[in-house]
This record gives sequence, structure tokens and C-alpha cells, in this order.
Amino acid sequence: MGLILRELARADREAAGSALEASGAFTQEEVAIALGVFDDATADSASDYAAFAAEEDGGLIGYVCGGSTPLTESTWHVYWICVHPRAQGRGVGRALTERFEASVRSRGGRRIVVETSGRPDYERARRFYEAAGYRQVGRIPDFYRPGDDGVVYFKDLA
Amino acid sequence: MGLILRELARADREAAGSALEASGAFTQEEVAIALGVFDDATADSASDYAAFAAEEDGGLIGYVCGGSTPLTESTWHVYWICVHPRAQGRGVGRALTERFEASVRSRGGRRIVVETSGRPDYERARRFYEAAGYRQVGRIPDFYRPGDDGVVYFKDLA
Repeated sequence: MGLILRELARADREAAGSALEASGAFTQEEVAIALGVFDDATADSASDYAAFAAEEDGGLIGYVCGGSTPLTESTWHVYWICVHPRAQGRGVGRALTERFEASVRSRGGRRIVVETSGRPDYERARRFYEAAGYRQVGRIPDFYRPGDDGVVYFKDLA
Repeated sequence: MGLILRELARADREAAGSALEASGAFTQEEVAIALGVFDDATADSASDYAAFAAEEDGGLIGYVCGGSTPLTESTWHVYWICVHPRAQGRGVGRALTERFEASVRSRGGRRIVVETSGRPDYERARRFYEAAGYRQVGRIPDFYRPGDDGVVYFKDLA
């Protein structure tokens, strides 16, 4: 079966939570916050969001959600991207990112910002963004917690 | 009459709006967003915010509001700071910032992030933060709009 990309929906909440937990990358608090963002992004009134699911064999294997950045003319943020461990390494994250970028572009967005951790165990995430054309434009010392910098990535869609 | 620093309150909304408009630094859309943040910060449930007013002769001449940064252990953001033009150049911004920092520290916060514009007409704002001990840790090209970078400042309170 192939990979299907579609709009994220409220019915995906449980599968999204499972993917977040299975990834092992997030604390319980982070999963709770991610699901709060999920709820905002899949609400009927969520006009400032873009959120997509990756589905395979009828099941959700990953999702991305982001939104337009307040106070900016055409900048968007990726808030969350997650691929279930059983589906990692097969280009699902890349496909989700490209679908997100296409949606941003079609809605007048021109650049995307994403923050991720500077920890050694996030090196894969950082390389993922770099390979997708994002470049580092900032690094906030101890942002998440002592020893855990926040790294700011940026991509110009033009 | 001396400068009084106190908690920001809902009753300050109109004076805060006047200060934002008088400053000339913000578009109508930015003023509307700032007042939305003001409402969040002065709501009864606003436990994750710190917001202070500067008052002189019974009138509000400036305010600062910020909050704890989601997903971080002890990082806070300054969301908005504004001093009425008639009171600028007299240390009101500095006093507000120090009051904010003291509040963050007393609540377990250890570092503060603030974003501002890279435009030439914001040089005074950038120098203000640098003089207050903030250092530039990032610069996002065209963040606000083409030609208007976002500059990220950081201060470690330790």
C-alpha cells in the first residue's frame, strides 16, 4: 500500500497521541501540549493552521501541524511534526514537510520557521531539516532546560 | 511625582491602547494583537503571565507583559513592552524590564527571550535590550515582512 497524505482531522487524535508517545522523543508534558496544539489545529475555526496526516494501510503513521505566525506578513511556523518509529527512515517526514510547505505557499506564506532541540539525540531531526533546505538562524542557550539549547531553523520558500 | 510600578490590571486596557497607538511603532493590526495579549495577561486565569504597569501622576505611561514559554523548564518570553512617547528616555522601559525580570526570577524562571525588529527605526529598541544585558542569539531573515528581519535576544538571569 502507498503513502497517503491528507488533511489532519479530529478523528486522528488518538493515533496522533500514540505516534507521539511511541516516538520516545517527548515527555508526558510535551505530549499533552502537542495534543493541545492538535486540538487547535483541527478545530472548525482553525483558519490559521495547516495540518496534514500521513496514512498507510488505513492507519496514521505521522502528522505535521503549523500555523501562520502572528505579527508577520507571510511567515509560518511548524509547531509539531512526528513520524511513528515503525515508519521512520522512509521519507514520511519529508513528504509531510513538502505537503506543509505547498499548503503554506498556496496560502501566501513565503517562509517557514521551526525550532528544535540542540541536544545530541536530536541530531537526526536537525539533519532532517538541513537536508530539506532549512538553515540555522539562531541558537538560544539552555532554551528548553539547562543543557538543552533551542535551535531555530528557517526556510525561504521563494 | 515619582514612578510607580504595579501589576497590570484589566482597567489599564484603554490607557495601554493609547500608549501603543501614540508610540507610532505599531500598525493597527499589531495594536489589536497587543491588546489580545493584554487581555490574556490580565485575565483571572493568567497564571503563566507576568505583566506590570508604570504609572505617573495617576496615569499609565507604559507596560510590559510576558509569559512562561511552553515546552521549556524555566524560559520566559517578553511579549510586549511599550512606553508612551511623552515618558520615553527617562528609564521607564528599564524599570519595567527589571520589574519583569524580578518577577520571572521569583517564579523560578532563569532566562528570558525577546524578539524585536531588525529595521533601522528599531535600533533604539535593540540598543535598549543590549544595554539591559540581552544579547543577540538569532536573526530570522524577512521575519515580519520582506526587509524586516526578526532579531532574537536572550538574557540569562543567573
